[in-house]
Amino acid sequence: MGSAADDRRYGLPRCACGVDVHAHIVPASFPAYLKGPRPTGWPEMAEAQPCHRHVVIDGRNYRTVSDRCWDVPKRLDDMEQMGLSLQAISAMPELMSYWMEAGPADELQRYINDQIALMLDDSAGRLVGLGAVPLQDMDLALAELQRLMRHPGFAGVQIGSNVNGKPIGAPEFDPFFEAADALGAAVFVHALRPAGQDRLVGPAQLQQVLAYPGEVGLAAASVICSNLMLRRPGLRIAFSHGGGTLGLLLPRLEEGRRVFPALQDSIATSPTEQARRLFYDALVYDEPTLRHLTGLFGETQIMVGTDYPFNFHERNPVDRIEAAFADEATRRRLLHDNASTFLGRNTRPAT
Amino acid sequence: MGSAADDRRYGLPRCACGVDVHAHIVPASFPAYLKGPRPTGWPEMAEAQPCHRHVVIDGRNYRTVSDRCWDVPKRLDDMEQMGLSLQAISAMPELMSYWMEAGPADELQRYINDQIALMLDDSAGRLVGLGAVPLQDMDLALAELQRLMRHPGFAGVQIGSNVNGKPIGAPEFDPFFEAADALGAAVFVHALRPAGQDRLVGPAQLQQVLAYPGEVGLAAASVICSNLMLRRPGLRIAFSHGGGTLGLLLPRLEEGRRVFPALQDSIATSPTEQARRLFYDALVYDEPTLRHLTGLFGETQIMVGTDYPFNFHERNPVDRIEAAFADEATRRRLLHDNASTFLGRNTRPAT
Repeated sequence: MGSAADDRRYGLPRCACGVDVHAHIVPASFPAYLKGPRPTGWPEMAEAQPCHRHVVIDGRNYRTVSDRCWDVPKRLDDMEQMGLSLQAISAMPELMSYWMEAGPADELQRYINDQIALMLDDSAGRLVGLGAVPLQDMDLALAELQRLMRHPGFAGVQIGSNVNGKPIGAPEFDPFFEAADALGAAVFVHALRPAGQDRLVGPAQLQQVLAYPGEVGLAAASVICSNLMLRRPGLRIAFSHGGGTLGLLLPRLEEGRRVFPALQDSIATSPTEQARRLFYDALVYDEPTLRHLTGLFGETQIMVGTDYPFNFHERNPVDRIEAAFADEATRRRLLHDNASTFLGRNTRPAT
Repeated sequence: MGSAADDRRYGLPRCACGVDVHAHIVPASFPAYLKGPRPTGWPEMAEAQPCHRHVVIDGRNYRTVSDRCWDVPKRLDDMEQMGLSLQAISAMPELMSYWMEAGPADELQRYINDQIALMLDDSAGRLVGLGAVPLQDMDLALAELQRLMRHPGFAGVQIGSNVNGKPIGAPEFDPFFEAADALGAAVFVHALRPAGQDRLVGPAQLQQVLAYPGEVGLAAASVICSNLMLRRPGLRIAFSHGGGTLGLLLPRLEEGRRVFPALQDSIATSPTEQARRLFYDALVYDEPTLRHLTGLFGETQIMVGTDYPFNFHERNPVDRIEAAFADEATRRRLLHDNASTFLGRNTRPAT
């Protein structure tokens, strides 16, 4: 197990006060599928370099991940180094498997949720769970949402920005949001299989670097254009990567609604006002951008998000927020108060 | 002809000092195609309400447009009301017709460019041209670029953000940028048939409201990821709609390049530094956004853009910039100096 002493990737230890809503897990292993031939998309693990494994999907190495994906003590050490008192953990997004046949997908999500539950039980309250549900089948999704929310460690669920190409603001997902609202389940929306991949010129990493933000932005816009927060004012819903491109879509959507009667008819109130009821993580890697988005969305709506433990993650989430804002009350909101509200965990940070 | 007195859509007259790089035209009519059956996508005009015509494409009303699309005196009156001394005119983007067979497409672009030339000749120097070339056939495109640039009223060309799905940073468009650079032709990149249309929930207008910005953002990113400005430092290239979502992609691309060796290898210098060599219009409908983008891209890179005369256009481009910036030197740059540089027209504004 890595200790604080031998892993200084995150600089000096500091007062742990941040609440991270965006961090991922991969189980240490996946069960064999026993009910028949392995379903398309069913993952397996293969050994890699020390402390690493390959997530193999359909015979191809989807991603090589470190044991920080499943090792709770290492994660808690890293959290201390990063200044985090609490972290919400969700599956590596590709594992949401909306494209898999519903039966096996449900089994896989239940397995992953059970693995998350074990990590929560092992974390002395430092981790909370965001489970996953097979949204390609609403009945199975609602049943699994009910089941996982019975574990007190789950704050809610992570969902993809789209389900097989349908943005999450589409009317067919209303029953899910109704149930999440009724159960008090927080909903964290993560970019998944993004639109615009054919518009990239360069290495494969550009998918997550450049196409994820547009995908999240359009997902958030779909929630606004369908008036979700007006229909379900109690819902707590957050968007990854600072809401992606939403911050630059919003003024144009606001003006478009002023100009086009069809948009006045379909969007019930100001898009900006609706956007200020959504939550966003602060994962934008840039202080001026973080300040701009905070001005736009409101300082009660933005929370720490790290994308830990993947390569492309925010190493210094607390420093980032402290560098962006001098005001102590603003810092406190972004570092933990907003996340505590979103997660329904109104506890004070550990020290 | 509408006069300043009977058209107060733009408020009180003011000192005309703005140079608008983003305004469109539609010719008053289209010729019949005489060389055979009408090619798919060939436009025709049909009468509509007074002062309006329908642009009919493949039997369907693509858009109903006003005579301000072709009437130069009305346009010059409106420019005075809007505080504009000079306007660069380009075709309604759909007319770029990259999806049409190359021969007819070339004929259509030549016709439109000739119509633009007639408008320029009729404008007493208040209009400059941004022509169009059939980029689906590089030889025809280069020949038409050579031809149109012989008219001194043309500052350059408008191109789409993608050509049949290929982003303009793709290597196959290098010969075009080489020629534009050699000829001193400004290149204005406009959103066209955007990615992400399947991610929208609501009326058809959301295509231009929400999908255009992402499309422009990815096009600009493709130019950065392919190091175009490093290979052609003399090129003058601008992006519509404030660069779309680029402003929110850029910090993530910068961080992605720090993290991923593949991106360090493929992107030769800082993406932000490259972005500060591109031009952008100010068409974002929001002062805080305009200030944020100006901070990011540099105050020498942003120019007036109105999208005149379509419904969804900036009515008060000068007020918008004056409301965003108190500093006179900054205002002057955004109102006309930057556009004069981009267009290669280093004239002082008319009074």
